[in-house]
Amino acid sequence: MNIPETNLPRLVIVGGGFGGLSLASSLKGSPMQVVLLDRNNYHTFQPLLYQVASSGLEPDSIAFPIRKIFRNQNNFEFRMTEVLEIFSKKNTVLTGIGELKYDYLVLATGSQTGFFGLKSVEQNSMAMKSIPQALDLRSLILQNFEKAMLSTNGAEIEKLLNFVVVGGGPTGVELAGSLAEMKTHVLPSDYPGLDSSQMHIHLLEAGPRLLPALSEISSSHTLDFLSDLGVKTFLNTAVQDYDGETVKTNTGADLISSTVIWAAGVEGASVKGIEGEALLRNKRLTVDEFNRVQGFDNIFAIGDVANMTNDKRFPKGHPMVAQPAIQQGVLLAKNLKNILTNKPLKPFKYKDLGSMATIGRNKAVVELPFMKMNGFFAWLVWMFVHLMALVGWRNRAVTLVNWMWSYFNYDRGVRLIIRPFKK
Amino acid sequence: MNIPETNLPRLVIVGGGFGGLSLASSLKGSPMQVVLLDRNNYHTFQPLLYQVASSGLEPDSIAFPIRKIFRNQNNFEFRMTEVLEIFSKKNTVLTGIGELKYDYLVLATGSQTGFFGLKSVEQNSMAMKSIPQALDLRSLILQNFEKAMLSTNGAEIEKLLNFVVVGGGPTGVELAGSLAEMKTHVLPSDYPGLDSSQMHIHLLEAGPRLLPALSEISSSHTLDFLSDLGVKTFLNTAVQDYDGETVKTNTGADLISSTVIWAAGVEGASVKGIEGEALLRNKRLTVDEFNRVQGFDNIFAIGDVANMTNDKRFPKGHPMVAQPAIQQGVLLAKNLKNILTNKPLKPFKYKDLGSMATIGRNKAVVELPFMKMNGFFAWLVWMFVHLMALVGWRNRAVTLVNWMWSYFNYDRGVRLIIRPFKK
Repeated sequence: MNIPETNLPRLVIVGGGFGGLSLASSLKGSPMQVVLLDRNNYHTFQPLLYQVASSGLEPDSIAFPIRKIFRNQNNFEFRMTEVLEIFSKKNTVLTGIGELKYDYLVLATGSQTGFFGLKSVEQNSMAMKSIPQALDLRSLILQNFEKAMLSTNGAEIEKLLNFVVVGGGPTGVELAGSLAEMKTHVLPSDYPGLDSSQMHIHLLEAGPRLLPALSEISSSHTLDFLSDLGVKTFLNTAVQDYDGETVKTNTGADLISSTVIWAAGVEGASVKGIEGEALLRNKRLTVDEFNRVQGFDNIFAIGDVANMTNDKRFPKGHPMVAQPAIQQGVLLAKNLKNILTNKPLKPFKYKDLGSMATIGRNKAVVELPFMKMNGFFAWLVWMFVHLMALVGWRNRAVTLVNWMWSYFNYDRGVRLIIRPFKK
Repeated sequence: MNIPETNLPRLVIVGGGFGGLSLASSLKGSPMQVVLLDRNNYHTFQPLLYQVASSGLEPDSIAFPIRKIFRNQNNFEFRMTEVLEIFSKKNTVLTGIGELKYDYLVLATGSQTGFFGLKSVEQNSMAMKSIPQALDLRSLILQNFEKAMLSTNGAEIEKLLNFVVVGGGPTGVELAGSLAEMKTHVLPSDYPGLDSSQMHIHLLEAGPRLLPALSEISSSHTLDFLSDLGVKTFLNTAVQDYDGETVKTNTGADLISSTVIWAAGVEGASVKGIEGEALLRNKRLTVDEFNRVQGFDNIFAIGDVANMTNDKRFPKGHPMVAQPAIQQGVLLAKNLKNILTNKPLKPFKYKDLGSMATIGRNKAVVELPFMKMNGFFAWLVWMFVHLMALVGWRNRAVTLVNWMWSYFNYDRGVRLIIRPFKK
């Protein structure tokens, strides 16, 4: 696969998410050939995917070409390909474009949508883990409105304007809030022929409260904010079946909807070739405090796919969000250099920087290590943190323009229905 | 199809391009029910499509949701659907969602790519008339680079890095210049493993000069600008065959390339149901000086699809660009009001506002009625005119950010390879 042979040890990183990028860029200048593999040529800023789905941002604003990030890094190679299998005995990975030898291998493959074995839901609902998925969802939402305009059948219109979001984590909450704002601000002015009161947003959470990673007080604020926006939240409600028309739940309350968005479960995105004890039921990989995969010497895992349980605060592993991935990437870079120089390794210790979620215009909950807040000021903090976390000033500037547009115009700027071109 | 019945006469406009929008918005407040039909929910600013294809702009920057434009216009209805056939005897159009009665019908369907009957070219080349096509082209160009990185086969790499643009009109010239700038600025820094001198851009024009709609001096400047950028221009060279690998031309000079972009021909996008004398060989429709389609009383055509020959300067009809469409839309709005009030109709007289094309950074040719210019100042004029022609300040601001980014960074910001999501 045409990767230059050097005298340096070769580190292969699988995945260009938060973990993979933080590791690769922390290895700048170190005596190693770093090869990053990803199926896409860009990094996706997943925390803002819901804004692509709800017509607030262009996909290009929340993605960044990987080659660009590493322009000035020598001993770095990027190849756009999928990793199919790991042959740990001969220290190679099989990719879509051939086999590649490694000295050290790091799996930074992240997570994928998990459906808890609910086949009907997997087939009929929409997930939102990638840019093409978010674009598909955007087109579907807008197409529902257009189709409702064409229909005179009340039941058909109801089905099209009923949205069901499953999962009360940040993704579900933020998407539900965002849909509610489309109902209030976009529907009445753009679709005067539709009765916007017919649009309903339902948020289903299997547990007893929203945003379980945050405090109870933040959960309660979030519930209030959503209720203000007209979202109907159903707690302790788990989906059991969805045939494309009817959502069946464990409480007996069924919902009719043509659009179910599944934000309820993620599982590790492990790679074939690592089996046995290390692979957990949720497809995360057991790692030690140095992110080494159980049973292997030179294979590591970081971020969502890694399950580290040495921290009493997180007996089931760290939360599957950006911060653990970034911090593990930084530390693993140091430890890899320590390995090369025969120095002792440093164990990982997670520094919790806080959590936050935005529910809508002027509405957010933020929990930092030193304070909790909600409302307008929290919303400003949320925007600032997310804006600064984007890669590159072009993305920041374009995102800021779009946010300002939405704020002052009570509107969403990017409402194109784009489908693959058919000749 | 659920369009409210009113006592007003109903005007159906097919197509939300420059002509359709200018007509519909000029009818604000007039005693008519205006129904606009388009297969997309957005208006495409076609003059900048080539920048989407060459990673300079997001698709959302050059498109605008149609409903948004007409938010405050009463008696206006938009429906997203395709028009399949016109039944002129019973005054209805058949759409993808049923039949619709009209009192007046305006075809503003624009143009489509024409291949002069070259089936092999039609099958194997890329066209660039719509946003999905431009996005496909962007992904293909970037995928070529990625694939070339994976290959060790010289012939394969040559094929991937050879680009052939067919057609020396504004689209072909602008795209060729834009590809040349990717070669100079993006390739060396992002693909250090590729020898950028292996990338070649060929521009083929069947006629004796580039930009035939402009003066000979502008054609000559354009040729020089392209040559400075390293584009190889072949004049008097027509494509005869392309099998996906070899471009055969009438001069015997064959080119090997996996990417041929066809910008050489357009034809009218007429609709089934209007046949006979009015339908010309290039699928434009013969109209009189009031844009009435030959042989019909209440069917009109404006823009690219209309062929009006009363103007001695344009014996074969007006050029297929934005200005005639916009001006015909404005006049037809007046004439439709005149019809309703039994006033005499005003014949169309085209006011030529000039032509322009940009070849690259600081390089453009501009011809206005009162002056010709080229180079840096022409380039500034080109940018200003195109920026102001975009709909809405969000699009203008985002486009400006992207242009500034590209200018100061010698770069293209939006280089994502996006393909439809496969489950």
